[in-house]
This record gives sequence, structure tokens and C-alpha cells, in this order.
Amino acid sequence: MLNPEQAFAEICKALPEFTAEPIPLGDACDRVLRQKIIAERDQPPFDRVTMDGIAVLYSALESGIRKFRIQGTQHAGDSVQTLSDKGSCIEIMTGAVLPHGTDCVIPVERITVTGREARIEKDYVATRGQFVHPQGSDHPAGQVLLRPGAAISPMDIAIIASAGLQEVSVSTLPVIRVISTGNELVPAGLPIEPHQVRLSNGPALLAMLGRQGFRNCEHDHIVDEPKLLRDKVARHLDDASVLVLSGGVSMGKADFVPAVLEELGVRVVFHKISQRPGKPMWFGAGPRGQMVFALPGNPVSTLVCCRQYVLPALYLASGRAKSAPMHAVLGEDFVFDANLTCFLPVRTVSREDGIVVAHPVPTNTSGDFTALSGTEGYVELDADRAHFPAGLSVPLHLWSKP
Amino acid sequence: MLNPEQAFAEICKALPEFTAEPIPLGDACDRVLRQKIIAERDQPPFDRVTMDGIAVLYSALESGIRKFRIQGTQHAGDSVQTLSDKGSCIEIMTGAVLPHGTDCVIPVERITVTGREARIEKDYVATRGQFVHPQGSDHPAGQVLLRPGAAISPMDIAIIASAGLQEVSVSTLPVIRVISTGNELVPAGLPIEPHQVRLSNGPALLAMLGRQGFRNCEHDHIVDEPKLLRDKVARHLDDASVLVLSGGVSMGKADFVPAVLEELGVRVVFHKISQRPGKPMWFGAGPRGQMVFALPGNPVSTLVCCRQYVLPALYLASGRAKSAPMHAVLGEDFVFDANLTCFLPVRTVSREDGIVVAHPVPTNTSGDFTALSGTEGYVELDADRAHFPAGLSVPLHLWSKP
Repeated sequence: MLNPEQAFAEICKALPEFTAEPIPLGDACDRVLRQKIIAERDQPPFDRVTMDGIAVLYSALESGIRKFRIQGTQHAGDSVQTLSDKGSCIEIMTGAVLPHGTDCVIPVERITVTGREARIEKDYVATRGQFVHPQGSDHPAGQVLLRPGAAISPMDIAIIASAGLQEVSVSTLPVIRVISTGNELVPAGLPIEPHQVRLSNGPALLAMLGRQGFRNCEHDHIVDEPKLLRDKVARHLDDASVLVLSGGVSMGKADFVPAVLEELGVRVVFHKISQRPGKPMWFGAGPRGQMVFALPGNPVSTLVCCRQYVLPALYLASGRAKSAPMHAVLGEDFVFDANLTCFLPVRTVSREDGIVVAHPVPTNTSGDFTALSGTEGYVELDADRAHFPAGLSVPLHLWSKP
Repeated sequence: MLNPEQAFAEICKALPEFTAEPIPLGDACDRVLRQKIIAERDQPPFDRVTMDGIAVLYSALESGIRKFRIQGTQHAGDSVQTLSDKGSCIEIMTGAVLPHGTDCVIPVERITVTGREARIEKDYVATRGQFVHPQGSDHPAGQVLLRPGAAISPMDIAIIASAGLQEVSVSTLPVIRVISTGNELVPAGLPIEPHQVRLSNGPALLAMLGRQGFRNCEHDHIVDEPKLLRDKVARHLDDASVLVLSGGVSMGKADFVPAVLEELGVRVVFHKISQRPGKPMWFGAGPRGQMVFALPGNPVSTLVCCRQYVLPALYLASGRAKSAPMHAVLGEDFVFDANLTCFLPVRTVSREDGIVVAHPVPTNTSGDFTALSGTEGYVELDADRAHFPAGLSVPLHLWSKP
């Protein structure tokens, strides 16, 4: 049986590469950048004034002048003016171009204006070049500002807009089908019998995928009937590039999913991972390279497997750069002796000393998904030990940051 | 001048309470829950089998029976069967109801089936009640599963679906207008003069708000002309409940924003906060209780002020429970002697010992927003000290988790 690391390595070998597409910048937040972003111009594009006040020639101050004739006013967005003589100044606003013939800005709080004359506060000491952000000092024109693989942040949106782009090339969102299997499942809103349970994995998977930007998802519920399962899954394989099934992958008599998938030409890459929850997970590659994740139907297993395997695989297929691993220290002792990797849901506390403490939230035989509310993620506990003492540092996987 | 904490306290005093609305569960992820979620039934709703295998009566095992007649098969979703006698067993699938008259499940891996007979592995030792998740053991019917104020997670979607709800009451998204002011601003895609700059704050604000779920936003660009500014802002005040302006709040001659807002009946709550970046920030309350945030136009200031004040205010007005503060330790020495609170952008590293280390990414006079790409947030440095040594623990504010 593969361990989690080996299983993910096998998934990576079967990974497609999603195509790229241009989209309007306003829709690009959280999408994966697939082009370089090049500085359109120097940044700042000119010697940019960073303070409201007056622009003067520094040597005039050196020669003792404290009183200047106001030659004019230059706002942000105005074309650049030229100082006529060192006895003059130009009123200047934050964001404006530094006027030609000036090299120093005196803040408005330090001057008194009388008529057309500005007088600098008696004891105020200026320096040459002050309150000027020199042209190109952030970066020169032509510099690479962002590289492919970035998940576009609001800051990146500003950078791309400042590079003059209205459109940007990002990874195409894969067409995803989320399929809940099981006779026992009844969607919310419909009458329910005592031996039935509410369908909850499908909506939770849609939410988990959608929250990470994978919004091109539809849900289907298929009962445990091999012919129906085959027909419907065949259609989804035609229409989609990623299938995420939940349920039907155990060893039980109604667990038709692996057999039906193989019958439909989906090559099994692995079945079972030495982990809890989620041991029965199945993964295969469809005839057109579709990724097919068949997750155990237990709600905690489903969510952990989606976070641990499905989302990272979707990111890599999107060309997204791998994110750095995270760590936390256990807040309490924990014992797990099943010789499997344990993914243990936790509440995290960011302590005042900067340490992230993970408090275990054990889930009742992995079915108690109500306990998951309020957890930030789960920690990964090694298969080859059984006792995990408080204070032990362990890998942390956040639900919201795969 | 107010400090950041005082400023936020003043914002809180002027906070409206957004109304609640029912929405389909499929749209509810990341929205703020405004109702209690009550367990529809016991969870599990019945004694639920957690393993594929056979269900038997434990006392039969005690009396030495190892070979059972297979009376029938009960799948998940089947109505409950009743064991006829202690020499029989019922084939049982994960998720099924435990059959009446049985109290123990033997995993399929531990039995050999020959015709209609199941034989248990010779040395296998079972316990009463094994592989049964008892009815109501996660929680009883009627228990409160979620309370108002939760930001609905994918896990919560599962919980709400399991409570049988197709719709859920959440905070209404406020109508937000993001307004960029400044003659110097030219949107991406249009020709640009040397003294002009690209409009980038508006798109970045829309992205930052949208990413946190505030998608009911429109953007407007208004040049620095008092009459035009007044007319357009008046219309936005009529249409929206939240205005977020960027630019025009300094002391410069073209900084008409505060005056125009006050003219339009927006009561000033504060102007200026003892912080860098973002010192000139202005906040007021409109005639209908609208929140009006006027942020400095400097890109770094705009983004920090949005994350530090606008998003938390929107969350509180949405009824969202306050999130716990986070901390990190400084990765390098940093000096800041301006007697202001410093919000210093950082890259964070989650070290193997569980400590979050924050590496300062100073921004050039707060205008260098290209440096912000790749930062996870910023740390907050006290106004009353100047030297911040490496290893010092400081509050951390993540861009993505207000």
C-alpha cells in the first residue's frame, strides 16, 4: 500500500497540464498566472513628489533663502512645470511630477503662505531630494514584476494594472464533476427515512473546490446500481477533465466505483493509501488524461482527501508554484497506534511568542464531521510512531491554504 | 490624533448592522451565518456500521460460534433487517443501519465466505459493539450545531446540509462603491502621458474585497474637480451602503474629498491615524448610516488601510465573530523611529519548530507596491519604541485572513 507521499507522487506522474486563457483583470484574483508581467514604464514613472507642499531648489535653502515667491501650482496629473529662478517655488501635491529646476520638497505643514509668498518655518532643516521618490527607484521599465505560477493576489492585481494590462493569461479552470454515490443519501429538502442520511459530501466538496477558485463544478448523485453508475460516469468522463467521486470505494458489495471506472477505460493508478482517515482512496487516469479521484464516502475522509490530494493536484495542473510547508506544535498528547499516517483535525492558536499550537479535535471514527467546524486544518502524524507528545512539531495542513 | 486601536474603536461605534437574507446553501460558503443550525436528527441517525463485513450477535461469538449462515445482505440505504437467530449473520456495508438483533460487526477481511456461509478467521478477537457508530453519539437531535456569526466553511456546508436545510440565513452583502480619485490616473489599456500613472488601487481594492466575499462592488474613477466629485459621490451615497475612496485625503490643494463628503452630510468621525503607512485616512458616517472610508491614495497605504480597517468593519457589520489575533517573530532587526504605529509588510516562514517568522519587506516610502507581491501580510510595530530586534514577537495581520 502506498503512503501519502508516494500516493501524491503517483498522482503527479499522471497530471495533465491545464491550458491557459486570457481573462479580464477584474476576474483574475486567485487565478494562476501563466505569463510574465513586465514593467510598462519606470516605477515611479517620474520623480514623484510624496508630500503636499512646495518644491524648491535646495541650493537656495543653503544660501539662506526662507521666503519664496509662489510661481504656480502643480497637481498630480499636471504636466511638468519648470522653476523660473531660485527665489521662487512651485506649490506641489502628492503624486505630482517634481518640477524641473527643483530638487527638494518642503511639507505644507512647515510653511506659511501669505498672498503669493511662502515662508518656511524658522528652524526647519531640509535635505536635498527629500519627499521625492526618484524615477525608476522601485524598478526600471522592462523588469519582470511577476512570473508564471503565482496565484494572483489583490497586490498582484495592482501590479498587473500598473503594467497597463487589461487582460492577463491564466490557467483555464478545469471542468469538474463532483459525484456522490450511495443509495442511503437524501438531499436536504426532501423527506427522509430513518435508515437514510443526508447528502452532505457533494455540497461540501463543491464549496471546498469553489473556495479555492475551482468554480467550474457540477454535482451529481448516483445510486449504487452498476449499469446506471456506468452510464452516468461515462457521460461525466466525456464532459469533464476532473472527476471527484465520494463513496463506493471500499470492499463492500455495493462498492462498484473502481470496477465501473476501470470498465470505462480509467487506468487505476492506486487503490488505498496507508492513512487514516481516507485509507480506501482510489485514483486513476481517464482515456483523455482525465484525473479521477474516488474518495471514501465518510465525510471526514472525503474532506481530508480533497484537501490533501485533489486541491494540490489541481494547483499543480494549473501550473501553480508549490507553497511552502507549514508546521505547528501539538497542544496535547495524542496516541495513534494504527501504523498508518494519521491526519488529525486541529484547532490552531497563534501564541504570543509566535508559535502555532495545534489542539487535536479527534473525530469519532472519522464520521463526526460536526467536530470539523472551527478546525483550521489537520496535522500529519507519522505512521512509524504511536505516541505524539504535547510540544512535538508536526506538519500542518490548513483547509484554506493547500 | 487617534492611534490605530482608537480609530477602529471609533469605526465600531458608527457601525451599521447589515440585514440577513436566506440564500441557497450552494452559494453560502464564506458568507456569515445569521441563524442557529439545529440537528435535524440524531447524528448518526441510527446505529451506523463503519466497516464492510457481517453483523452478528456478540454472545454467539462468546459461545464459540465461528461459522454463520448468511441470512441476507443489508446495504447502506436499505431499511433495517432483523437477525433471525444467533447462528446467522447479515452481510453489511459501511454506512448501513446495524440490523436488529446484532451488536457486532466483523470486517470482511476477517471472514471467508463459502456459498451462504461466512467463517470468521481462526484467531480473530472481536469486541461487543465494534465497528458500530452508535445513534446520537456525535450529537442528539435538536442540538445546536452552528451559531450565528460563523463564516461558513466547506465543513459547515456539510453540517448545514446534514441538518436538512437547502437555504440558510446569511448577512446581506453590502452594496459597496470603490472610488479612485485623481487626475493623474489612467486605466490600463488607455494611452498614458509621462506625468500620469496607471490606475491600480481601484482594481486592487475590488479584488481584496471580492476575495473576502464582498462581491457587490462597483468601481468609479473621479477626477479632482470639486463639483464633479460632489455630484458623483452624492449618487454613490444614494446607491450604496459602503463607500471606499482612495486618494484626495491629504492636505493638498486638490484634496477635496473630506470637504465634499462633509458637504454631502457625511459626519466626520476621524481624519488621520498615528500610523505609517496610511496616516491621512479619513472615516465618516453618512446620513443613512453609510460607512465612508477615505483612504490615502498611496498604493501601499490603500491596501493596508483596507485590510486593517475596511474589512474588519465589514465583517463586524455582517455579524461575524471576531477572529483571534495572530503573532510572529521578526526575522531581522528593524528600526522605525517616527513615533507612529508601523504596519510593516512581511514574508512569513512557518519554521519546523512551529514558529512563524516574519521577514520585513520595507516598501519604498510606502509607494512601492511591487514589493508587496509575495508578502503574506504585515506586522504591527508599536509607536513607542524605535528599535525592533530580530526575535521580537509582534502582532501579525494576514492579507487573506482579516
